[in-house]
Formats: sequence, structure tokens, C-alpha cells
Amino acid sequence: MSDPFVVVGGDAAGLSAASKFAREQGGRDVIVFERGRWVSYAHCGTPYYVKGEVDRLTDLLSLSPAAADERGIDLRREHEVVAVDTAAETVTVRGDGETFDQPYGDLLVATGAHAVTDPLPGSDLEMAFTMHGMDSAAAVRAALSDPDSAVVETDNDYVDAPLVRRYADRAPPERVAVVGGGYVGVEMAEAFRGHGLETHLFQRSDRLLSPFGDAVGERVADHLREQGVELHLDTAVEELAGEDGVAAVVHENGRVPVGLALVGIGIAPNTELLADTPVETHESGAVAVDDYGETTVDGVYAAGDCAVDRHAVTGEAAWVPLGLTANRAGRAIGRTVAGDPDPVGDVAGTAVVKAFDLECGRTGLLDEAEARDAGFDPVSTTITAGSRSGYYPGGSETTVTLVADRDSRRVLGGSVVGRDRAAVRIDTLATALESDLTVAELERLDLAYAPPFSPVWDPVLVAAKVLRGEMEG
Amino acid sequence: MSDPFVVVGGDAAGLSAASKFAREQGGRDVIVFERGRWVSYAHCGTPYYVKGEVDRLTDLLSLSPAAADERGIDLRREHEVVAVDTAAETVTVRGDGETFDQPYGDLLVATGAHAVTDPLPGSDLEMAFTMHGMDSAAAVRAALSDPDSAVVETDNDYVDAPLVRRYADRAPPERVAVVGGGYVGVEMAEAFRGHGLETHLFQRSDRLLSPFGDAVGERVADHLREQGVELHLDTAVEELAGEDGVAAVVHENGRVPVGLALVGIGIAPNTELLADTPVETHESGAVAVDDYGETTVDGVYAAGDCAVDRHAVTGEAAWVPLGLTANRAGRAIGRTVAGDPDPVGDVAGTAVVKAFDLECGRTGLLDEAEARDAGFDPVSTTITAGSRSGYYPGGSETTVTLVADRDSRRVLGGSVVGRDRAAVRIDTLATALESDLTVAELERLDLAYAPPFSPVWDPVLVAAKVLRGEMEG
Repeated sequence: MSDPFVVVGGDAAGLSAASKFAREQGGRDVIVFERGRWVSYAHCGTPYYVKGEVDRLTDLLSLSPAAADERGIDLRREHEVVAVDTAAETVTVRGDGETFDQPYGDLLVATGAHAVTDPLPGSDLEMAFTMHGMDSAAAVRAALSDPDSAVVETDNDYVDAPLVRRYADRAPPERVAVVGGGYVGVEMAEAFRGHGLETHLFQRSDRLLSPFGDAVGERVADHLREQGVELHLDTAVEELAGEDGVAAVVHENGRVPVGLALVGIGIAPNTELLADTPVETHESGAVAVDDYGETTVDGVYAAGDCAVDRHAVTGEAAWVPLGLTANRAGRAIGRTVAGDPDPVGDVAGTAVVKAFDLECGRTGLLDEAEARDAGFDPVSTTITAGSRSGYYPGGSETTVTLVADRDSRRVLGGSVVGRDRAAVRIDTLATALESDLTVAELERLDLAYAPPFSPVWDPVLVAAKVLRGEMEG
Repeated sequence: MSDPFVVVGGDAAGLSAASKFAREQGGRDVIVFERGRWVSYAHCGTPYYVKGEVDRLTDLLSLSPAAADERGIDLRREHEVVAVDTAAETVTVRGDGETFDQPYGDLLVATGAHAVTDPLPGSDLEMAFTMHGMDSAAAVRAALSDPDSAVVETDNDYVDAPLVRRYADRAPPERVAVVGGGYVGVEMAEAFRGHGLETHLFQRSDRLLSPFGDAVGERVADHLREQGVELHLDTAVEELAGEDGVAAVVHENGRVPVGLALVGIGIAPNTELLADTPVETHESGAVAVDDYGETTVDGVYAAGDCAVDRHAVTGEAAWVPLGLTANRAGRAIGRTVAGDPDPVGDVAGTAVVKAFDLECGRTGLLDEAEARDAGFDPVSTTITAGSRSGYYPGGSETTVTLVADRDSRRVLGGSVVGRDRAAVRIDTLATALESDLTVAELERLDLAYAPPFSPVWDPVLVAAKVLRGEMEG
């Protein structure tokens, strides 16, 4: 076991693992291969960089290469792992103009995910973007700015400066399209409106933020319209049309001229690297792992957006690529590989998103069909209650959906949406889920009450009260 | 069992019980005796009425007598229950100029608590107030206002109009004192500063908000000073001096001239009514009850500020008089008396308070001596982390204290303080406590993350991570 701990991918999961390993274990080396130049950056912050609320791309970095070096991590950027041989326990690496084999003692595959654009003809045009990666964020912000005032950060060696400069030199669009109404689409609509642009958002289904359920989707749609976003729901985009760049969105019912299109229709795990190995994948396409993040091959781990987690409610594997669980799994694997086995933890699918002034949160199983597939008999309710005591100024109507299993009465999932401290309230439900609380136990929680922050019965408790009443008839 | 359900006290616990009972049970009457004129009001809102953020006292009512009537509750205001005979199953009531005996089938004692002013000579002077009750809130607000512009709500039959008018007619003070640095003291300091008054706060110990622990107390003290409150910590007040009204606070080291004093040094349960009955009280002086809110006498219940609850962490009875648990216990007892037994639920001692721009929360066992008394071996840590991703504007340093048991590693309690969504985060800990989570389980919760609302590792998770590290050495 003198061979190093090799990590493929230098973002949240990979560098969390390498950092924890380096801290816990003195004797063995840890090498991180990252095919790009950026490492350890906050993907979730890129819409706010485009909007202009974050000044510099480098503000989004959480661990610089220099800091990684200080931690004792051998970080090699622009080194792509192109093959894995689990029998020989080596990876083949291309970098610095050569290709070489690197033996490993333990291997962590933390290759992340990529934005999906198929099947969307025209998504390779100039002025068509996805939001996966720092360079595309830099390019979008440059594309929105006048050539004179465009921000081109050339004082760091990360950014793809020629790409950014190319977009900076174009005249900015006046009208833009967002294709896809998930997190990225909603956050980018806010960013574009922040630049005063006419913004069209196209969504194939009739709901925005579908993983957040109907109650959230409806309020977000109303709010986006209030904020001047032109919504095209139930509208399948067929093509991005244009020659020198995107000129129009062509959809089933017509054509909207735009000068820029942002495509956020989904992501897929990066697992090609393991295609020729015995490492098994889950039906989602992500790498299958056990409670310690280990794949079906001993000594080979996977974490972050390329791997599954165990779902807190179903107990089954689920692919829920999000930031906290990537960091957490990486950290636990670093510890495990260092000799102190630590479970990666379950995923409840807790997610929050800001949609202009609305805060949205969701956790657990919200979709009734999904709950039924998992063997539950779901029953749900949606209530709206104040975020503060009614007499205290500044409150907001807070809508809570709560889903439970009719038989066991266990809480399965829920959502919260409102303007006032709504997102953070989802943590109560996330904690309740992971503790297998019943609706009655949820109703009896001793939660915080003070007029400026919450009514006597927090909206989450109101939902529990109502759902319990409905279940008990 | 044709005798009615009789409730003594028409506030949170009493009217919650009566409402639930009336809804669940058609055949039996429910009579509520309230000795005052006000019923079902939000005590916690009174500081904001004094401050002027709430316009009218009647905004603080949650159930009007007319609405109680519609619910089928026989509500009799200005009817004082002066004796209970548990053998005869009657209460003696004084009201409408007569005294009569009222038989009961079941009895709920929901008599609340009263503000303690002993031993403080001078607390009966004019311009010396406690904040227990709507009339004193009305009087304080009137006392702060110019006689010409004082608010005297005479369009309702609740308020003690002569009292309020008397204070309205006095010249308002320029300098005020708050005696006591608990919730009421801190909230009232904010209210007085809101009127631009020179405000002196006297606290016997060296900490404000002592149930919230040192980390909260220190930040609140710094913040109150920033907000212009003159703090006199470690200062025992000996007397309120004056003749025609309060003229000075006399303390062990000197004398501060003031024109008004607000005394908030504690409350005590109203249990005199049961003194001559076999109903037992807890060492705190509050009425002892079981998991269903029933006292040691069959058919006699107690709830709200006059009764104990079972503590979620210790499993023992504890007197923690707060709004949510009063409402909740009342509601459960209403249901139980109606024939559908429902436990009142545990109390975790979750509390939140606004101190100017700071949000403070606490839950469970925070005090190490208290934890040791309950048989635990407490270990704790205090961390400070951002409330949002570091690059996202508007975040605030959030300080979390987490207490756990060294042996079982179970979370025992905690506190949170900060300016940005700090208070609501205590609900995560409150939920974790009631689920008996360990520190490692808390660390692995899948909590919400999005740059505008929380960093990748929520401050609560950071505290869990650090405490786990310290415990595992």
C-alpha cells in the first residue's frame, strides 16, 4: 500500500477527499489529476457572477492550487486521465505533452457531470451556452457586456481568455432565451433580467422547477412573469437558428428572435472513463457505490456528480448531483482511504433555489408516482401560512407541501416557497426525514417562535397539523 | 359525563383547548372563565406594539370573543375562578356581581404566569411597569408618547382606558431603564431605542439572555452597545426611587436618573388556585402533569405557562413557559378530553429572540451544569461561519454553539446567533434533538445549500464537524 491515493477530478468531491486524506494520513501521497485549469470552484455561484453580484470569477474559488500544495496535495491541472486499469491498478494520464501510467493504491473517480444539449440542433452556435464550468460563465458575462466594458479576467492562468475575449468583442444582445426551466434556467433568467434584457424562458413541460413540485412551480411561474420574464411553458424548442451566432429560438409553435441562448436542460454523469472497467453503474448511468463510496471494485471509489448516493427515504441508490453531498462524500472517502472508515451519508435530495425574490426549497420524495414506485402509499397536502405573526410587518405567505406515507405515517418529503426565510425552513423537513419522523411527531416538534421570524405555528407545523387531520379523517 | 369541560383562563392554552374540544365533540359544553377582559392575545407581540411596529393592540388578538362564540365556546370574561373543589368537581366563580359554583366533567387550569418584581422596592411606583399583559403594553406606549399624540384605543371594551389615559397625560420620559436582560429586557430596549430614548439596561449577572449561553450573550451585548443601549452588567438594582413616579434606578454602585422603568426579571406560574387541592406541583412551582397534560387528579388538566412539560432531552418534567407549547398542549388536551387521547408533546426549550438586527436562537440543554445534573457528560464547541457562500453579498457571521454528550455522542442542545436567517436555523437543531441524533448523524444531514441562503456547509453542520473532530480527538 505504498502506492498513492489517486483522485481523478479537482473539484468539490475530489479536493475534499484529497484534503481530508492529506490531513489524516502522513505516509502516503495523494495526487489529483484535473483535466482543466479550474479547480475547486463554486459551480452554484456562476449565475451570480453572470448577474454581476459576484465581481470576479476567482471569488468563486474555494481552494487555490497554492493552498492545495500547502496541504500536501500533488495537484496536476491540465492532466487528463484517459484510461483506468483496475486489474493493474493504474490510470493512464495525458498531460505536459506526454502520456504516462500512474499506479494507485486507492482511486477516487470524481469526474463530475456535463451539461446535456442533445438533441438540440444549433446548440453549438456562437452565443449558445450551457452553464457548466467557469469558462462558459465568463463567456456569457462577456457576451452580455459592451465590448468596451466587458470584464475579461486575464490576471489569472485559469480562464480561457481567447474564448472570453471573442465574446467580449461581440455586440451584446438585447433579447435572450433560456431553454429549460430547472435551477439553472430560473437562476439565469434572474441574471439576464438583472442586465435589463428581454428574457424568454422555454420549458417543455407546463411546470418550472419540476423537482420542487407543483406548488413551488406555480408560484415561481407567477413571480417570474411579475419580474418581466416571458414564459413559454408547454413549449418544446426544436432548434436554435442562426449563422454567425444564435438568431432565433425555433419552437413547435413559432420562432422568437434572440441574440443569445442559454441551454439548461439537464446534466449527465461523466463515467466514460470507467466504461471498459468492471466498475458497475446504476440505472441512472452514474457510478454505483456502497455506503462508503466504494464502487464494485475494491479500492476504487466514486463521489460527487458522477456517482450515486443512498436515498434517505427509499434506502435505494439515487443519482442526486448536488454540492453538499459531493463535498461530504469526498471528505468521508478521504477519511476512509486514510484508514478510518466513515460513511458518506444519505442524500435526502434537499435543494434550495432563489428565483428573484422567492426562496424555494424541497427535500425527500415529492412526486407521488416516484413515492409509489418506492413502495409507499403517498398522501400529501399543501398549505399557505404566514412566515411571521400576522401583526408583525414584513411577513410573506409561505406555501408548504408535505408528503407522507399513509400506512406508516412517515414523512416522505416536502417543499417550501415564500419570500421570507422560506428556503432555510426546508432543513426542518430534511432533518425530520432522515430521522424517519411521522407526521404526528413532526407536528409536535418544539420549533422556534418569535413574531419577527415565525408565527406560533411555523408553516411546517401547520402543514403537519393539516396533513395529520386529513390522514386521520 | 354530561357536565361541561371547564377551562380556567382564556389565553393561548385555554382557548386552544376549548376550540379543539368544541370542534371534536358536539354533545358537551365547554365553558371558559377568564378573569380579565382580554382573551387570546399574542403576549410576544407586545414589545412591538410599544415600539410602534404594530399599530393597534387589537391586532394582537388571535381569537375574538365573537369568534369563540361562533365556535360554540361559552366564553365568560371578567369571571374569576376563585376556588377548585376536586372532590365535588366544581369550581367557584366570581363574576357579574355574584359568586356561584360551576360543576365540571373535566377541568383545564390554564391560568398562565405573572411577572415577578420582588424584591424590588419602588416597582409599584407610577412609571414602573412589567410587560405582562395588554394593559401594561398600552400603558407603556401611552407613557412614551406626547399627551397630544398618545394612542388610546377606546373603541374596544378590552382595554383599561383610565389606566392608559392616566399615562398618556403624563409628559413622556427622555431616559428610561430596563431592569433585567432576558427576552423582555432585550426586546424592550429595542422598543425604547426605537422611540429615540436614552436607554439603560441593568442586568444582575454579566450576561444578557443567559438561557441562550455565553456566545449569544456576548454578541448581543456588543450589538446593544452599538445600538446605543447603555449596558450596566453585573449590576444589582436595589430600588426604583421616586415620589410622583419613578425618578431613578438605585443600584449597588450608584444612581441613574430615569423617567420610566420596565422590570423584566422573571415570571412565576399562577397556581394559587390549586393550593388547597390534591393537585401536585413540580419543584419549579408549576403544576405537575403527565404526557397528556393531566395532573395528579383525574380529569384535571393543566397547560401553558402554569404547567410543566416533559423535556425532550432529559425526559424529565421542566417548566419552560413559551407560546408554541402552550398552544400545542391546549390543543392536545382539547382532543384528549373530547375522547381522542393525544399527547401534549415534549418541550425542547426552543426559543428565538430578535435583538435589534441580531437573530438569536437556542434549544435543548446549553448550560453544562444543567446537562451534568441531568446525567450527561457535556462537551461543547462554538464556531463562527458565514450564513451564505463567502462570495455572495449580504451574508453575516453566524455563531453556533453545539453541546453533546461525550459518552452517547447525542446532541443535547445548541444556540445560533447572527444577522442573516440565524434564528430559523435553530429548528434544525430542535428537530435533531427530538430525534436523538448523534453529532455524526447531524454532520451527515443533507441540509439546504444555495449561495444566497447558506454556504455548502451550513453553520450548523460546521459546528457538528468541529465538535465531532474534538470528541474523536
